Amino acid sequence: MKFITNEKLTIVGAAGMIGSNMAQTALMMKLTPNICLYDPFAPALEGVAEEMFHCGFDDVNITFTSDIKEALSGADYIVSSGGAARKAGMTREDLLKGNAEIAAQLGKDIRQYCPNAKHVVIVFNPADITGLITLLYAGLKPTQVSTLAALDSTRLRSELCKYLKLPTSKVENCRTYGGHGEQMAVFASTTSIDGESLSKWIESGRIPGADWDAIKLRVIQGGKNIIDLRGRSSFQSPAYISIEMIAAAMGGKVFEWPAGVYVSDKKFDHIMMAMETVIDKNGVHYKEPNGTAQEEADLERSYEHLCKLRDEVIEMGIIPAIDQWNKINPNIK
Amino acid sequence: MKFITNEKLTIVGAAGMIGSNMAQTALMMKLTPNICLYDPFAPALEGVAEEMFHCGFDDVNITFTSDIKEALSGADYIVSSGGAARKAGMTREDLLKGNAEIAAQLGKDIRQYCPNAKHVVIVFNPADITGLITLLYAGLKPTQVSTLAALDSTRLRSELCKYLKLPTSKVENCRTYGGHGEQMAVFASTTSIDGESLSKWIESGRIPGADWDAIKLRVIQGGKNIIDLRGRSSFQSPAYISIEMIAAAMGGKVFEWPAGVYVSDKKFDHIMMAMETVIDKNGVHYKEPNGTAQEEADLERSYEHLCKLRDEVIEMGIIPAIDQWNKINPNIK
Repeated sequence: MKFITNEKLTIVGAAGMIGSNMAQTALMMKLTPNICLYDPFAPALEGVAEEMFHCGFDDVNITFTSDIKEALSGADYIVSSGGAARKAGMTREDLLKGNAEIAAQLGKDIRQYCPNAKHVVIVFNPADITGLITLLYAGLKPTQVSTLAALDSTRLRSELCKYLKLPTSKVENCRTYGGHGEQMAVFASTTSIDGESLSKWIESGRIPGADWDAIKLRVIQGGKNIIDLRGRSSFQSPAYISIEMIAAAMGGKVFEWPAGVYVSDKKFDHIMMAMETVIDKNGVHYKEPNGTAQEEADLERSYEHLCKLRDEVIEMGIIPAIDQWNKINPNIK
Repeated sequence: MKFITNEKLTIVGAAGMIGSNMAQTALMMKLTPNICLYDPFAPALEGVAEEMFHCGFDDVNITFTSDIKEALSGADYIVSSGGAARKAGMTREDLLKGNAEIAAQLGKDIRQYCPNAKHVVIVFNPADITGLITLLYAGLKPTQVSTLAALDSTRLRSELCKYLKLPTSKVENCRTYGGHGEQMAVFASTTSIDGESLSKWIESGRIPGADWDAIKLRVIQGGKNIIDLRGRSSFQSPAYISIEMIAAAMGGKVFEWPAGVYVSDKKFDHIMMAMETVIDKNGVHYKEPNGTAQEEADLERSYEHLCKLRDEVIEMGIIPAIDQWNKINPNIK
């Protein structure tokens, strides 16, 4: 079995639970033999590198460094879970500010050390915002930066399968759009169950409205549920899916779950959020989803919530006002 | 890409760090679509199952249960990392007794619920002893139970590659035999570096004796080093390698690193330890390694150490005296 590419993949935040799983996943999925693990926390990073060495992967060149210049120089692909976790006493704003600043620095570092990077996947929360900031400062094209959003859609599929006791093959095209968080827009109309639209299942009462509301709530609280059950944040599924995303950008299997993407058109503008997307060798591309009036209103509300977060970050001085974006990234019109 | 088999794989201890990584690894390596996750700790187990659902694997049937009967019924393959970790205040003997009892119960459960299981891989420490106990009580053939031992050999390769700054492809056939622990026998004569025996590299002084001793020490302390660096026990590499072992037993890629295997011949008898092994569709098979006089003395010492542990477990009443083994497992002569 061959590698998808020989180009350099840099995993940022590789000492963490998500990052270390990404390293293993990328090696197992044979993305590339050239993997560089980066984390500012050197001892744990070395521990992760040792674990990877001990797996005994053949014909790979795994390097690790706490020097961001060394990590990013020559990197063609980057995936970052390198945000800070919310700590006791931290407000939501503290977390937003901290991770927004990390994203701004990552973007600047990409521009400085690997301006020819082909694709970047951002995983740390709020990913819609950190991805947007990274894109602005990296100077890349909107097709070159995507963010993890698919987990909400896979959770929707999982909840429907559990509720209906059906195998995943019978529940297709589950989709949530907009933000990744409490304000996500959970669509019913895109999903087909055994060939029939989920909307019809709900309208006909085969899935009672109250049950559908409960399913949506479980999707929205899917991450919180993992913390409650496991005593730690979800790390396996975010790692696995983000490596599928970067694999698609390398030319591997096309990624067809929703991803966060820079959106700029009449309806939604200057924002990063989950749309109907495809990630392939040419990067991430989107089209706007069509839903029922209610679904579109949910999506509009999700968009407005993201605009507020974006404006907070502008207010904090971390990114300039929208009309100045083009000056720091000419690829943003 | 197809699955290796459709037969049922049960992962015991799936809520833990090793077990949950095994689940993801087995799904990614497409061992079988039928994976059952077992752990007595139900909430964390459900959390792991949720993570697997959220990965969005297609066409798989992932089940989870805290009922060992349900977990093992119909299981064709079992991999267990379900031991207890050493806790503060616990002596080495406490740990040995606790995990030996867990292994005895696992063996009895296998005999009761899945006597037709094809292969079992045991990962929890001391694996040489817990594997032996599982084999005795499960009533399986010696070819049907193997234990994780390869990490010491992959660590040897890794340490040599780091020391010599060579890619893994240049450092072949690294081997440690005997016990997995401080008493392992680290062989030099099996390894070839750039086509030449490691023994010659040492004899000629290209690797000074003191450096070789330091390398051996790092191999022996490889697990401790991960704890020091990462603040947690190694879990990614043990999970990955044990899934490679069970994949081989299913008919996947043949596993050629050393595994712990039941050994019974003139020199070593009534013991489980790492030998020169192959795991394939027919189970685990071994031949005794040939080394220098010093290496064979090291292996003899490692064997004697394991005999002492085995005799302690007999003393504790967890397994009967050797001459009674045949009565509980007729496959043991």
